[in-house]
Amino acid sequence: MGPGIAFSVEGALAVLGRTPGTLRSLLDGMPDPWIEHNEGEETFSPFDVVGHLIHGERCDWVARARIIMDQGENRPFDPFDRFAMYRESQGKSMPDLLNEFATLREANVRTVAGWGLRPEHLALRGSHPALGAVTLQELLSTWVVHDLGHLAQIASVMAKQYRDEVGPWGAYLPILQDREGGTGGSSR
Amino acid sequence: MGPGIAFSVEGALAVLGRTPGTLRSLLDGMPDPWIEHNEGEETFSPFDVVGHLIHGERCDWVARARIIMDQGENRPFDPFDRFAMYRESQGKSMPDLLNEFATLREANVRTVAGWGLRPEHLALRGSHPALGAVTLQELLSTWVVHDLGHLAQIASVMAKQYRDEVGPWGAYLPILQDREGGTGGSSR
Repeated sequence: MGPGIAFSVEGALAVLGRTPGTLRSLLDGMPDPWIEHNEGEETFSPFDVVGHLIHGERCDWVARARIIMDQGENRPFDPFDRFAMYRESQGKSMPDLLNEFATLREANVRTVAGWGLRPEHLALRGSHPALGAVTLQELLSTWVVHDLGHLAQIASVMAKQYRDEVGPWGAYLPILQDREGGTGGSSR
Repeated sequence: MGPGIAFSVEGALAVLGRTPGTLRSLLDGMPDPWIEHNEGEETFSPFDVVGHLIHGERCDWVARARIIMDQGENRPFDPFDRFAMYRESQGKSMPDLLNEFATLREANVRTVAGWGLRPEHLALRGSHPALGAVTLQELLSTWVVHDLGHLAQIASVMAKQYRDEVGPWGAYLPILQDREGGTGGSSR
């Protein structure tokens, strides 16, 4: 493994700020089957993933960061509903979701940048309902990895739509052998 | 598994045409460590991946499609150099590579669209140096899956840069447990 990158607020926000544009480039205007198909029961389609990311913008990352900063370990986080989008995305189109995600994410990135976080803030601790003590820095790092995990998941779900079309090349395409994407990177 | 999507030239080109914009959104202007770090020896960084995709635009997909249409199975494909970018990307910046990839891909998508491929063309066969007989449809499908595989690989390599930063959340982030990305989706 390579050396990894040390966390910085700027580096994290550089990734987080790019995700809406990346998803828009990848998904906006794609024919419906590419955004609606999943990998089978209890797996996410690209449409599901964007809805899941939206729910995270509303209820997870910044909300939990605020709990850490305002209440610390005394007040455990609310559990995150990983399936809320099955309800919340109903009746919406992919362009609706992409716009909603972009608006929410932009505001959240601006909020976090505005906090002017310093090392002493990043070390503040909260209480995860299942994992126990976690720091603000770990929360923000997880937000970044969660984004990238779901981007990889979308690419993987889309790739597998052609798994029966590639013929003998399947042997050379590890993404087609990936474990089923399931519900992807969890943000519980 | 879901039902998959039947190949169509339009569907394939819809994916292929979006990849340059997706990579630009994800990578343009990112701080250097995010684009230069790989997962350790003999793995690709995001910078390497974009160079590899460029080499494919020049030497693989459309070149092989032309061999199939012009010479059929009589003329096996040239082997593809999966590591050419270590030489060819030298001295270039990520913006250079993103621009070069976008220009090449746009021209290649236009070329393929201009062929007006019909089912009888898609069934034409070529000879892969290792895999044997393959069809034009399989080649074009593989191009699509190869793009998506490398997009997932870039997301995965980037995610792992924060593997030591997420603390206990690592248990909930399957992308951090992924098999090492290695040289990713092969286009041999």
